[in-house]
Amino acid sequence: MRKINNISIRNYKPSGFMKRYQELVHNEMIPYQYHVLKDEVEGVEKSAAIENFINAGKALRGEEHGDFYGMVFQDSDVAKWIEAASYSLAVFPDKMLEKELDDVVETVCQAQDEDGYLDTRFTISQKERRWQNLLEAHELYCAGHMMEAACAYYEATGKRKLLDVMVKNAEHIYEHFITQNAEGYPGHPEVELALMKVYSITGNRHALELAKHFIDCRGVDPHYYEKEIKRRNWYVWGNNPSDFAYQQSDMPLREAKDAKGHSVRAAYLYSGMKDVATETEDKVLSDACRRLWRSIVDRRMYITGGIGSTCHGEAFSTDYDLPSDTVYAETCASIALMMFASRMLADEINGEYADVMEKAFYNTVLAGIQIDGKRFFYVNPLEAVPGISEVAQTQRHVRLTRPGWYGCACCPPNAARLISSIGKYAYGEHEDTVYCNMYAAGQVEFENGLKLNCETEYPYSGEVLYKTEGCGNVVLRIPAWSKEYEVKKNGEKLSLRPEKGYITVPVCDRDEICLSLDISPRYVFASQNVPALSGKAAICAGPLVYCFEGADNKDDVLSLFADIEKKPVLEEYDGSLLGGTRMLKAFGYRREPQDSLYCDTAPGMNRAELIGIPYSLWANRGRNQMRVWIPYIK
Amino acid sequence: MRKINNISIRNYKPSGFMKRYQELVHNEMIPYQYHVLKDEVEGVEKSAAIENFINAGKALRGEEHGDFYGMVFQDSDVAKWIEAASYSLAVFPDKMLEKELDDVVETVCQAQDEDGYLDTRFTISQKERRWQNLLEAHELYCAGHMMEAACAYYEATGKRKLLDVMVKNAEHIYEHFITQNAEGYPGHPEVELALMKVYSITGNRHALELAKHFIDCRGVDPHYYEKEIKRRNWYVWGNNPSDFAYQQSDMPLREAKDAKGHSVRAAYLYSGMKDVATETEDKVLSDACRRLWRSIVDRRMYITGGIGSTCHGEAFSTDYDLPSDTVYAETCASIALMMFASRMLADEINGEYADVMEKAFYNTVLAGIQIDGKRFFYVNPLEAVPGISEVAQTQRHVRLTRPGWYGCACCPPNAARLISSIGKYAYGEHEDTVYCNMYAAGQVEFENGLKLNCETEYPYSGEVLYKTEGCGNVVLRIPAWSKEYEVKKNGEKLSLRPEKGYITVPVCDRDEICLSLDISPRYVFASQNVPALSGKAAICAGPLVYCFEGADNKDDVLSLFADIEKKPVLEEYDGSLLGGTRMLKAFGYRREPQDSLYCDTAPGMNRAELIGIPYSLWANRGRNQMRVWIPYIK
Repeated sequence: MRKINNISIRNYKPSGFMKRYQELVHNEMIPYQYHVLKDEVEGVEKSAAIENFINAGKALRGEEHGDFYGMVFQDSDVAKWIEAASYSLAVFPDKMLEKELDDVVETVCQAQDEDGYLDTRFTISQKERRWQNLLEAHELYCAGHMMEAACAYYEATGKRKLLDVMVKNAEHIYEHFITQNAEGYPGHPEVELALMKVYSITGNRHALELAKHFIDCRGVDPHYYEKEIKRRNWYVWGNNPSDFAYQQSDMPLREAKDAKGHSVRAAYLYSGMKDVATETEDKVLSDACRRLWRSIVDRRMYITGGIGSTCHGEAFSTDYDLPSDTVYAETCASIALMMFASRMLADEINGEYADVMEKAFYNTVLAGIQIDGKRFFYVNPLEAVPGISEVAQTQRHVRLTRPGWYGCACCPPNAARLISSIGKYAYGEHEDTVYCNMYAAGQVEFENGLKLNCETEYPYSGEVLYKTEGCGNVVLRIPAWSKEYEVKKNGEKLSLRPEKGYITVPVCDRDEICLSLDISPRYVFASQNVPALSGKAAICAGPLVYCFEGADNKDDVLSLFADIEKKPVLEEYDGSLLGGTRMLKAFGYRREPQDSLYCDTAPGMNRAELIGIPYSLWANRGRNQMRVWIPYIK
Repeated sequence: MRKINNISIRNYKPSGFMKRYQELVHNEMIPYQYHVLKDEVEGVEKSAAIENFINAGKALRGEEHGDFYGMVFQDSDVAKWIEAASYSLAVFPDKMLEKELDDVVETVCQAQDEDGYLDTRFTISQKERRWQNLLEAHELYCAGHMMEAACAYYEATGKRKLLDVMVKNAEHIYEHFITQNAEGYPGHPEVELALMKVYSITGNRHALELAKHFIDCRGVDPHYYEKEIKRRNWYVWGNNPSDFAYQQSDMPLREAKDAKGHSVRAAYLYSGMKDVATETEDKVLSDACRRLWRSIVDRRMYITGGIGSTCHGEAFSTDYDLPSDTVYAETCASIALMMFASRMLADEINGEYADVMEKAFYNTVLAGIQIDGKRFFYVNPLEAVPGISEVAQTQRHVRLTRPGWYGCACCPPNAARLISSIGKYAYGEHEDTVYCNMYAAGQVEFENGLKLNCETEYPYSGEVLYKTEGCGNVVLRIPAWSKEYEVKKNGEKLSLRPEKGYITVPVCDRDEICLSLDISPRYVFASQNVPALSGKAAICAGPLVYCFEGADNKDDVLSLFADIEKKPVLEEYDGSLLGGTRMLKAFGYRREPQDSLYCDTAPGMNRAELIGIPYSLWANRGRNQMRVWIPYIK
């Protein structure tokens, strides 16, 4: 049983920082993505994502229709848009968006086959290839995203249409894999967590059973994909069926120790695992989730909450291999990590999970988005150098500026759905207790009747004020990074010690809880086991990782050294800077340049100020050097 | 016209350091490689290199024969062995080796077709495929190596047999490419410099003309390989014909600015270019060579003289992309760099060329060889960490211990031929002047009658004593790294200022020149433009780069910091250590370990001694951490 339940999407009305991003999603990203999906944006690679659904509907009705176009998982772009648009609609009522959303949903529903199957790739043609290629064809992945979309649409609008369609779809999948006992498990996990959402909303036991089935059978026979490939004579990309670790099938999940393989798939899978473990009170599975969590957080995660440090397979690398420059750290992977974290937190109230959730959100997820909401990073480096990034073979995938919409458009709509549902990550409840995990400014209503109004400039301020309506317990997270903190209730200081990162404050009507966190900048050091970070330090302020960009540092960040004995200082908030932010000033040195490649005279050092900006805001001023970790002088 | 001529291989008899390595080649590597080539070593991948020549001979005589086996360039292994064995024979008379050598040469000669063609791959079968696939089939590369072998065999033994065969082969190639005007240029350059060797020994003008032709036409039509691929329907590996930079064909060589593509091919090509430029006094071509040299030495070379910093195509990366861990830095590439350097030096007496030659030799080339001469590195990392090297996808190619003989056995015989001919790099002459570039201990006889006896423990001592017989000028290199130096003639100090890194000392019979160089250890710093080396320092002593290995540093090198204000010291020479070497002691700190991946308390620092060994000797004591560049504290 979950110890924290998510709030409904309709029950959080943002203000402040969160509102700015949710508005960006609502005003820019969702309309833009809608037009991309409908192929109405000039200069953007054709998507055909909506057209595919139209063609699938026509095919089912026996009408003349066009071919399927795009990636095999093109349907999921539509699903993620429906999900994001639904969440956004719940926050920002918008008749036009609701109409567009209803139309898209209708188009999707028309594409469902009589038997419940729903995937345009194999509905438009080649029906005989359904379920033959779990390794690559991503039917379960697309189904999962559409189930999530259905849950979001229902939750936001109360409209059951898509949910009914997706329950029918889940029953179809159940029929295939459970009733008919078909072998196999998803090439790209995602449906597991989606089925658990369907279960939580509808109570449909088949959805739970199916999610559990995919978790239980995965990796028990690691050779499944090898057998599958022998039974068919077609491929999507020709993936290697024997890369067991890449596809998270090298061992039964209950035995898993290390986070492995494609990092987005892995973290979606672990999220589904944890949902199943919590719901079924499966201790062995929960322990495996905890081991995987520790593997990520203790040995395989960037300071920015990025995961998947190698571009080879967009995958986890080995322990402590966390290069800043050849990095992958996909935006989607950090979104998936937030999902995993929020599920761990739901079962075990421990601030560490929320700390990581917040780290991934404020740094890697937001770094994925240009401040105008129009361009997106998939790869999030911690160091970028014009002339080397994008150019060197090992860094071809690392971009210096955010590209526009790709053919493989996973990250932009994923970021949109995450941001527009951030309230669910920020707030939770259980009986008469409410949980504040992320200090999101705005108004929150809980099912238990308690209301909170959160006023804060967080993450640019450590002051968070909660005003209450109704009675109960307010549980507040005290982040591990806050060296000092203070909690006042109605002006009176409370001396509470956090238990696993949380304090509990009993409240009644019109109480005011004032939390003061210490967001003063701090130097952070990596373990001696990370070769790439020896002798380097980064600077964080509150949940924000800061970086140094050429634009603020004389176009040369590579010459900077930090003096870690001098405390960095935050500048005042500047609303006109990069959409509104606080710069940071650190103290250190700028080395003198040397002409030769190697020189046996130590470079002269001149005192210098190092100007930092939040990592998430880098690359909004053109191509320039950027570094999170800089060498330090003690 | 060359300003320095190489000495004959017969005219240098080594002692000291060079003798130890030449003996290792003679006693271990050459016999071992001979047995590998003859498939007589158990547990080593089949070579069939000699067998291929036997089969080609049989095929030509119409006898029953086996198939070709191995890499398309398998013949070159035999060629490099002949070259190495010839050089070695000139230094260490050895009846058994001479007999083996004569037999192998005989076998090779038997494999030449009537028309002069000599390549077992297309002689054993598929004669119709000759010269169809310059991109991949490496016929010109193999021919080049066999020409070099022929020159060496002739120079060492006076036997013309193989030289005659290879002159005939050169005429056959001339007929094809010049007389019959066939399009194209070598996929793997090497034949250019080999033809220039043939020309210098035989005076055959066709050899010169052909070398010049391959230099002149390369890259003038960058699309040659694309056209070639359309004319044939077979492949070796399926190389991309449009990767112009990789294959050094993106522009005419006279316009080249940056060292590009496969680094071994590039440096062989530039060596051939420089030979042609010098011989034909082609200033434009010489200028291009100088630009390429600058590109390498100023922006694309490791401190160890390693080149080719990416495993993708074993190639040069972009400027300043010199990662220590994902590095390639193939042993063969540094050998090729020495060849290029010695050719630059022959035309322009400048110590910089010899400095680089020496850097590549004492560091990367020697690092390629295990101290027992039985195992070999192809890839020479500047940082290795068990658990990450060999394991992380970006470092799969980086080995922690030297592997044995590969199927693609380029490096081991290449190192053998280089080391056994080191006298040619160390000493040169022109008229009455002799050049001492590398302080190789031993006796040298020059064509001009001068004899030198060099006594030194170099590189472990900076004291070099030359005793002379005969009169003339002795030109001594003063390395750029020697901050101070002293030259005495017959006990009397000379006050000579080096001109472009060289000083000239007139000598007569029984003079004694005593050169004192400063090999005291020095910290070296990389340009601010190299992102991987910010805040790091390396230590060199004389020509040797030192490294820090776990074996000497409590199994944890990643925690070490150097205090660059404290001068490191060389330990006494220890004959029992790693085959005889001098350790180095530096002073600095060992950081305290931290348990968490990231921590906001600066690690405590404890004073520590850092124990270094010459980089070339790393990985002789099992798998352990190694680092050349370490972070420093000032």
